[in-house]
Amino acid sequence: MPAPASPHPRDRPIGVFDSGVGGLTVLHELLVSLPEEDFVYLGDTARFPYGERTPQELEGFAMQIAEELLRRRVKLLVVACNSATAAALPALQSRMLQTTLGVDVIGVVRPEALQAVATTRSGRIGLLATPATVDSGAYDRAVQSADPHVTLTSVPCPDLAPIIQAGGAGGDLFDEHLVDVVRASCAPLRDAEVDTVILGCTHYPLIRPLLQRALGRGVAIVSSGAALARQAEHALTSRGLDTRRTGEGTYSFLSTGDPEAFRALGTRFLQLPLGPVEQVLPTADGALLLP
Amino acid sequence: MPAPASPHPRDRPIGVFDSGVGGLTVLHELLVSLPEEDFVYLGDTARFPYGERTPQELEGFAMQIAEELLRRRVKLLVVACNSATAAALPALQSRMLQTTLGVDVIGVVRPEALQAVATTRSGRIGLLATPATVDSGAYDRAVQSADPHVTLTSVPCPDLAPIIQAGGAGGDLFDEHLVDVVRASCAPLRDAEVDTVILGCTHYPLIRPLLQRALGRGVAIVSSGAALARQAEHALTSRGLDTRRTGEGTYSFLSTGDPEAFRALGTRFLQLPLGPVEQVLPTADGALLLP
Repeated sequence: MPAPASPHPRDRPIGVFDSGVGGLTVLHELLVSLPEEDFVYLGDTARFPYGERTPQELEGFAMQIAEELLRRRVKLLVVACNSATAAALPALQSRMLQTTLGVDVIGVVRPEALQAVATTRSGRIGLLATPATVDSGAYDRAVQSADPHVTLTSVPCPDLAPIIQAGGAGGDLFDEHLVDVVRASCAPLRDAEVDTVILGCTHYPLIRPLLQRALGRGVAIVSSGAALARQAEHALTSRGLDTRRTGEGTYSFLSTGDPEAFRALGTRFLQLPLGPVEQVLPTADGALLLP
Repeated sequence: MPAPASPHPRDRPIGVFDSGVGGLTVLHELLVSLPEEDFVYLGDTARFPYGERTPQELEGFAMQIAEELLRRRVKLLVVACNSATAAALPALQSRMLQTTLGVDVIGVVRPEALQAVATTRSGRIGLLATPATVDSGAYDRAVQSADPHVTLTSVPCPDLAPIIQAGGAGGDLFDEHLVDVVRASCAPLRDAEVDTVILGCTHYPLIRPLLQRALGRGVAIVSSGAALARQAEHALTSRGLDTRRTGEGTYSFLSTGDPEAFRALGTRFLQLPLGPVEQVLPTADGALLLP
């Protein structure tokens, strides 16, 4: 009896992971930009948030997750998380290139920095991000290496992601406090007269219309999702790994925490129907197990 | 004692009206595209839906609403409603041009038809709309008059707006039934190989990502809101009526029905914070009164 035919590598799914539901705004862009592809998303909600973890811990988590997604035969790995990108991208890239298929890994920061540099006409770019991301200097380095004549004005926003996460959990997202926080966050960027703003946190696209009004109409907004979608496409086509199927692909979800909690918050972040959510459990020896 | 200075006409608000909350997706685009302008929105929810009314009734309603918005000194009137545009646009335009200021009136259909004709490369455009809108032939005429060589494939969608309205009322918008309806609605447009699709109902932008996936990535989607925003801007600048203020303008709401019901549904459609909602009551003699 012949062995069952293995699917052609180009028909394998794209893997996406994040510490929680924030990366679903990135998946949203990927689903709209590459509707024919299949996706599998892993949210490491059991260990959310990543912001307080050491780089060593994060590298361990990322390698665990990458192995789980490799078992699911992904053809490309997207790291939709600032902390994991900063801590683990080189290690992930080196591990994934050792696989038979040679799986590419792309992360946040660099794609949106490149897109912002390509978009600005005045040479003045703004950044809205968490304090940890601003402090890391990752966007400064990425912008600087793309064009040393472009200046970056960074605004750390300690409150923005928690407010959006709480609003996404069922509250009224658009309360007065959020509007005040948005205006205060955008004021330094208006003062600096930037013409392009990077949303350096995956939660922020959910309030993009509010940010656009506060920044003014002439300001271009660059999100990780749109920038990553473009780079994911290039990564696939350059290797001949883009699917040739027509029609909508499928997408599915893994969560290290409670699947129902993931689903409740996830629909709001994905802005598309959420399918089944399967739980996978992190173990002490560095594997992810089905419960 | 000198009379209080009247505000310069360019600092007056833009009036927008619809039979209910659907037009809030149009207001959303206007608020993002023209953030410095002030707006006043009137939702005639007490007489919703307009689809079953006679043209005479609708012209009467539209004139009533226009008078109310004139009392609030609007500088431009946007009819964000297919039925009211079809029934009352010429009458409204003639009435509003008789005012001292000479207020322009712009409606739906023509702006998005023009934008679709300007966007298509294959000359094949699709339309998703309610059966009443499709039957009216308004989009066929608008496309035909813009370019007789462009073909329009129209799909009447009897279920789509009611499902979106019900989902917006607090249910789970993205259930399986909606996904099935979206796929079935888009199938004839895929078969016709259109490259541009007009969303001919103000409810549909709320499920735009779902439509984009079902139509495929190469298809451009044109909504009333984006097309009207552009035309509103031209109407204002051509008369020197665009505001010179910087910073965010204000927006407020009038409802002929229950303000709390308007607010509950409205936030989801506006996708921005909803401010106070004031009730105005339609009367038998054709005026709108504060209760």
